Amino acid sequence: MQTKILLDESEMPTQWYNVVADMPNAPLPPLGPDGQPIGPDALSAIFPMSLIEQEVSDQRWITIPEPVREVYQLWRPSPLYRAHQLEAALGTPAKIYYKYEGVSPAGSHKPNTAVAQAYYNREAGIRRLATETGAGQWGSSLAMVGQKFGIEVRVYMVKVSYEQKPFRRSMMQTWGAEVLPSPTDRTESGRQILAKDPDSPGSLGIAISEAVEEAASRDDTNYALGSVLNHVLLHQTVIGLEAKKQFEKVGDYPDMVFAPCGGGSNFGGAAFPFFADKAAGKAVRLVAVEPASCPTLTRGHYAYDFGDSVGLTPLMKMYTLGHDFVPPGIHAGGLRYHGDSALVSQLYNEGLIEAVAVPQLATFEAGVQFARAEGIIPAPESNHAIRAVIDEANRCRESGEAKTLFFNLSGHGHFDMGSYDKYFSGELEDFEYPAEAIDQALHHLPGVG
Amino acid sequence: MQTKILLDESEMPTQWYNVVADMPNAPLPPLGPDGQPIGPDALSAIFPMSLIEQEVSDQRWITIPEPVREVYQLWRPSPLYRAHQLEAALGTPAKIYYKYEGVSPAGSHKPNTAVAQAYYNREAGIRRLATETGAGQWGSSLAMVGQKFGIEVRVYMVKVSYEQKPFRRSMMQTWGAEVLPSPTDRTESGRQILAKDPDSPGSLGIAISEAVEEAASRDDTNYALGSVLNHVLLHQTVIGLEAKKQFEKVGDYPDMVFAPCGGGSNFGGAAFPFFADKAAGKAVRLVAVEPASCPTLTRGHYAYDFGDSVGLTPLMKMYTLGHDFVPPGIHAGGLRYHGDSALVSQLYNEGLIEAVAVPQLATFEAGVQFARAEGIIPAPESNHAIRAVIDEANRCRESGEAKTLFFNLSGHGHFDMGSYDKYFSGELEDFEYPAEAIDQALHHLPGVG
Repeated sequence: MQTKILLDESEMPTQWYNVVADMPNAPLPPLGPDGQPIGPDALSAIFPMSLIEQEVSDQRWITIPEPVREVYQLWRPSPLYRAHQLEAALGTPAKIYYKYEGVSPAGSHKPNTAVAQAYYNREAGIRRLATETGAGQWGSSLAMVGQKFGIEVRVYMVKVSYEQKPFRRSMMQTWGAEVLPSPTDRTESGRQILAKDPDSPGSLGIAISEAVEEAASRDDTNYALGSVLNHVLLHQTVIGLEAKKQFEKVGDYPDMVFAPCGGGSNFGGAAFPFFADKAAGKAVRLVAVEPASCPTLTRGHYAYDFGDSVGLTPLMKMYTLGHDFVPPGIHAGGLRYHGDSALVSQLYNEGLIEAVAVPQLATFEAGVQFARAEGIIPAPESNHAIRAVIDEANRCRESGEAKTLFFNLSGHGHFDMGSYDKYFSGELEDFEYPAEAIDQALHHLPGVG
Repeated sequence: MQTKILLDESEMPTQWYNVVADMPNAPLPPLGPDGQPIGPDALSAIFPMSLIEQEVSDQRWITIPEPVREVYQLWRPSPLYRAHQLEAALGTPAKIYYKYEGVSPAGSHKPNTAVAQAYYNREAGIRRLATETGAGQWGSSLAMVGQKFGIEVRVYMVKVSYEQKPFRRSMMQTWGAEVLPSPTDRTESGRQILAKDPDSPGSLGIAISEAVEEAASRDDTNYALGSVLNHVLLHQTVIGLEAKKQFEKVGDYPDMVFAPCGGGSNFGGAAFPFFADKAAGKAVRLVAVEPASCPTLTRGHYAYDFGDSVGLTPLMKMYTLGHDFVPPGIHAGGLRYHGDSALVSQLYNEGLIEAVAVPQLATFEAGVQFARAEGIIPAPESNHAIRAVIDEANRCRESGEAKTLFFNLSGHGHFDMGSYDKYFSGELEDFEYPAEAIDQALHHLPGVG
């Protein structure tokens, strides 16, 4: 009984897949504060032109540069698993497969785009990248690859995480990145915050402002983002492209594809390559799984909104809970972004993909069940997809359908055992965002476009 | 340029390799407290007969049971890497390869024997296993596999680790094991310690006593050990056996094999299958790498000594620092066992394998250099082998020799970032064990055999 379906390095994709080529309607453009579409130049202070071109491209296939593929080879192609032991534990006739992205040295899918962003920035002569990180998953991914392309990485890490979760910080230092607790006194944004509150614990919004400010104000420095943007989702499509080859090897194909969805790069990376088949008439359902406590797609407004909390970015048409949305403190995992990828949002709005929101305790219950069957302890983000897959597999047990289910196991939980601890000790709670709060967010939308 | 040499599941070894068959002299027997060789029966209270038979077997090949192979498939065969990026960073003509055992869900090579031990115990009708753990690497490996064979696992975890390193504990709980801070009031050994010192922080010696006592006193419960014993090293030979097949695929063969050495299962697993070739006349050097602060092979006495601190086990002929040896508090990694595997000890004594001791700071320096080149952050134990390999690769740079070097990257460092933190902040120190202390140990040896 085969457990892992492997690919040789020679079978690794040579091109990323751009879903824009198969979308029935062109993506809506980002807008400036005046409500007018912005051009590529508006982004050139913080991104290299090659990435801006990818951001607006409608070309179906984009070649993966050889130096990027060389770094990918440190962990790619990643294995596709058949979850025999989970199927047996559930007593389901469904066949369950998962792609395991936790094999990357940073432990998640995030390096797939970090490698590409570091490469294109170096090609553009950039020697420094600034970025932000919350608990550290994205920051550590960029730290890991920066060194490979001779790029210094500075990470603004939310101060409360910097102090409470030192291990991701040590990872970044091991890979040679500079990690600063944000807010710092090195940026205008940081100094403003500290002037008001010298003991500010920081926030992701503040850390983004510091990183963007540094990138915009220094010629040698650019900015890198770990999700949301079109080019980030593009780079992640190696996941789904490999999975399709692996399904071919065993003569199977998913009826349903599940992936966690926060900013959208996890879902886009796993599901978009299957969208190409769907657009060509194949029956495959693509399901984005989000937290009930941050229910962007399932309960948010489809509207133009800012990508960051303070309103410095262009406006994007997306499902949003309002750019000043902050998920409740009891929320353990990632997937806490107020908005979503514009591509994912548009496909969802047009009814081409599905979304489901799952409550937190049920995601940890699913993660523990998965770990006891399959061994791997999943990241809390991945547990969202696992919850939805187990629910579907249980429905299959009732109906007797032998569906083929596929999900992206986007990372391991080695740096999230504190959240598992809280789950076991009963400190985690479920939280449904009240309807009034979501209605209220309408009043905070910029109201353009 | 190929980075990873993979094997399909169908190429996984079907037999373990028993080095005893190729040793020029039969292993010296374990002795009882009376100085007389003990028979298999003396161990049957805590081990199943099938493992006792493996412990004393001189058969070259021992079949891996199919249910064990099925669980191995969750992560095996593990990849063999060619360290192109490390070679480039060192500017060495040497070719460096490493086997990566961190792909197991527990993050190290330890599950290779945990699976087998759980399987044979279940076959013998055992429903519970008791074991001890320090920082948690072995305990989590046994916890991960116990559930797969319907075996309850109770882990006595050294209390100070239980409190200071909660994440390995949460892993074990996620996999369904019961974890108790040792000393407990559930065993006579534990109660004795607590009577003297109610606030005892515990020690590995005490935890072993508690687990052995429980196994000896309950018919449904056996004991499991994560290193040292012959059958443990036997199970680990899947590492070296796979590596040999992987070298064949690329038409290469190591001039030197390096592995960390504490109790010996890491080294035995990686190196013994190459010893078979050495015994047949092939020129290959096998190097055990140990910490300078616990220099068993390089500075210990070759004598009969107890396997545990309190003197409950049979006596084994081995290199030892004395069974009451405790490594200094500044020692960060594992590899802190006072003795060594009897098989490794005898081969070393007969000049058939080599050993080198490396200081702590230099191991972390090597680990950081490795992580920046290859991505993977190694466990502190693995850093010992990396130090020795980098030293050899640097010698090759001087001499111009293009040697082929192979080492076992036995685990990742995701649960050891606290030690990296201490390294970066300058809190770690080197420590050479004083010669007087090693001489003194002679007075504590039982003086039999």
